[in-house]
Amino acid sequence: MNYILQDENAIYYECDYSSDNALYLKLGSEAFFITDGRYKLEAQAFVKEATVLIEQDIYQKANELLKKSKIKKLKYDPKEWSIYHYEQLSKDLLLRFKPLPDLSHKKRIIKSDDELKKLKIAAKLGAKAFDNFAQIIKDHGFKNSEYVLTHMAKTALSQYGKYALSFDPIVAINANAAKPHATPTSTQLTKKDLLLVDAGLKYNRYCSDRTRTVSTRKDFDFGTEQRFKKKRIQKAYDTVLKAHDHAISKARSGMKAKEIDALARDIIDKAGFGKYFVHSTGHGVGLDIHEMPYITSKSETIIEDGMVYTIEPGIYIPDEFGIRIEDMVAMVGGEAMIL
Amino acid sequence: MNYILQDENAIYYECDYSSDNALYLKLGSEAFFITDGRYKLEAQAFVKEATVLIEQDIYQKANELLKKSKIKKLKYDPKEWSIYHYEQLSKDLLLRFKPLPDLSHKKRIIKSDDELKKLKIAAKLGAKAFDNFAQIIKDHGFKNSEYVLTHMAKTALSQYGKYALSFDPIVAINANAAKPHATPTSTQLTKKDLLLVDAGLKYNRYCSDRTRTVSTRKDFDFGTEQRFKKKRIQKAYDTVLKAHDHAISKARSGMKAKEIDALARDIIDKAGFGKYFVHSTGHGVGLDIHEMPYITSKSETIIEDGMVYTIEPGIYIPDEFGIRIEDMVAMVGGEAMIL
Repeated sequence: MNYILQDENAIYYECDYSSDNALYLKLGSEAFFITDGRYKLEAQAFVKEATVLIEQDIYQKANELLKKSKIKKLKYDPKEWSIYHYEQLSKDLLLRFKPLPDLSHKKRIIKSDDELKKLKIAAKLGAKAFDNFAQIIKDHGFKNSEYVLTHMAKTALSQYGKYALSFDPIVAINANAAKPHATPTSTQLTKKDLLLVDAGLKYNRYCSDRTRTVSTRKDFDFGTEQRFKKKRIQKAYDTVLKAHDHAISKARSGMKAKEIDALARDIIDKAGFGKYFVHSTGHGVGLDIHEMPYITSKSETIIEDGMVYTIEPGIYIPDEFGIRIEDMVAMVGGEAMIL
Repeated sequence: MNYILQDENAIYYECDYSSDNALYLKLGSEAFFITDGRYKLEAQAFVKEATVLIEQDIYQKANELLKKSKIKKLKYDPKEWSIYHYEQLSKDLLLRFKPLPDLSHKKRIIKSDDELKKLKIAAKLGAKAFDNFAQIIKDHGFKNSEYVLTHMAKTALSQYGKYALSFDPIVAINANAAKPHATPTSTQLTKKDLLLVDAGLKYNRYCSDRTRTVSTRKDFDFGTEQRFKKKRIQKAYDTVLKAHDHAISKARSGMKAKEIDALARDIIDKAGFGKYFVHSTGHGVGLDIHEMPYITSKSETIIEDGMVYTIEPGIYIPDEFGIRIEDMVAMVGGEAMIL
């Protein structure tokens, strides 16, 4: 297959290195990694199984290589390519460009043993970081704002800079947690709040992703045994936890993704919170924090051994509170194993 | 003008709010902000002068609105749009899509007084953060790795989470500074190193950007009076500083961007380091960390009052060291004023 990739993680998957201005061109048995002068030293040191080319205009260089080659068809991902860059790339070429949405994500949907190992380590480090974050909060966090708590989460997740983050952590108190993608505010944490934390780190570029919602007190932890004073919050919490546990224990290889979504959604629906579960049950995790398979109510994707995805049901009551519990699972031996 | 925007900052510029999954559609006197349910509460609270629409599929909704409207032409930025999303947007429509590269960046190239104020505050906060970072290094930084120092830079720049960052700080020691976009390593800082720091923060979404290269010792600071033991490093440093100062003092409104690039480049060329200045002299700064005008050796853009850009000459000797000094300037009264 002849194909071209532009996405940083898609390229890293092929040749063990990438930069934020690079192209990877596979032409039969040949492969080219094209980047600019800023990345010359690193590219020459790390790129595997591809010829490294350093060019100011990487699109023009790819266009030249295609002009010289004798290939007739080239696959590309229409989600990766802007109209502007695609036009630079394809200018004056006679060959046929074949769109293949999610070209790289499709290649990456089943993880290798080596990738599973890295994802497992990432998840373990991520879980440990939640414990460290709990300690940081207990030592210094109360009376601080979500802004400061978010920075503390970054400190804990990155282990003071050692690890890159999968995404900016979400740290949301009480009603702010009702926004599934809350941004931090000046709201300060007290010893009797609801606190939602969604955060992950990268180990060797592979992402972790984890969410816990807790009831804060002097000696709280990020475990899943939580006691809230308000009955309505407790009912929502118990429902989300039940949906989370049920989906993980009943997920099987061979099911459609929408069946796994339904395992969680049905429990939330039956408890009367259906309209407050405003997103899908999960998403694949790998080099990207969001990749295939997507665990949505409409996805016909067949779940197979080697796939890694999140289970993260939630209930969000506007202006009141939000609850989400998320773990990463890998399909192993037909069942979902928490990473 | 009828146009559609997808980029987060482009949309924010129009209606004072945005999200990472939003469209802004301007149809004559009407404007629509379309996002998904995750951002409902914030969109309804913050979007100005546009109708907020909450939809699961924002592209399909825009397509429907266009189908119903009577407009014949719609402008869009081909750099902003992936082929995939463009096809969703334009499906079954008869109207003409007119590509306008840098549509929003062109609107934003001259900053308003209000924007200049925000950029000035951002730059001042950024400069202050460098002072704080120097103190953090002197208190805790020596013998720590670039990873940890990068995290310390984030702590100083964000003021413990108060401010978002313009980009991940670059903190590079000695030979690592020879990579203009260095990524952190385990190299540890001593009291006699060359240290390059490139970092910025956002104030009300407007970016700061600043680079200093310093000679570390017990009582170093991030000023531009630096003494290096090695003569070759000192010569390169003095050359970069001269190029930086010269470009800023001689830049005038009415010049072409390439003339400003030449002000810096000629000095580095004449000192014999020309081939080691591997990037352009600067870039515009605003809501995006890189925007118009670009101060490159080829740009014919006429520089005007109200433009804000960086002056950041550098010399990078592979495997030895790298030097860069960067400030943001605003064109005011025909001259470049350091922000």
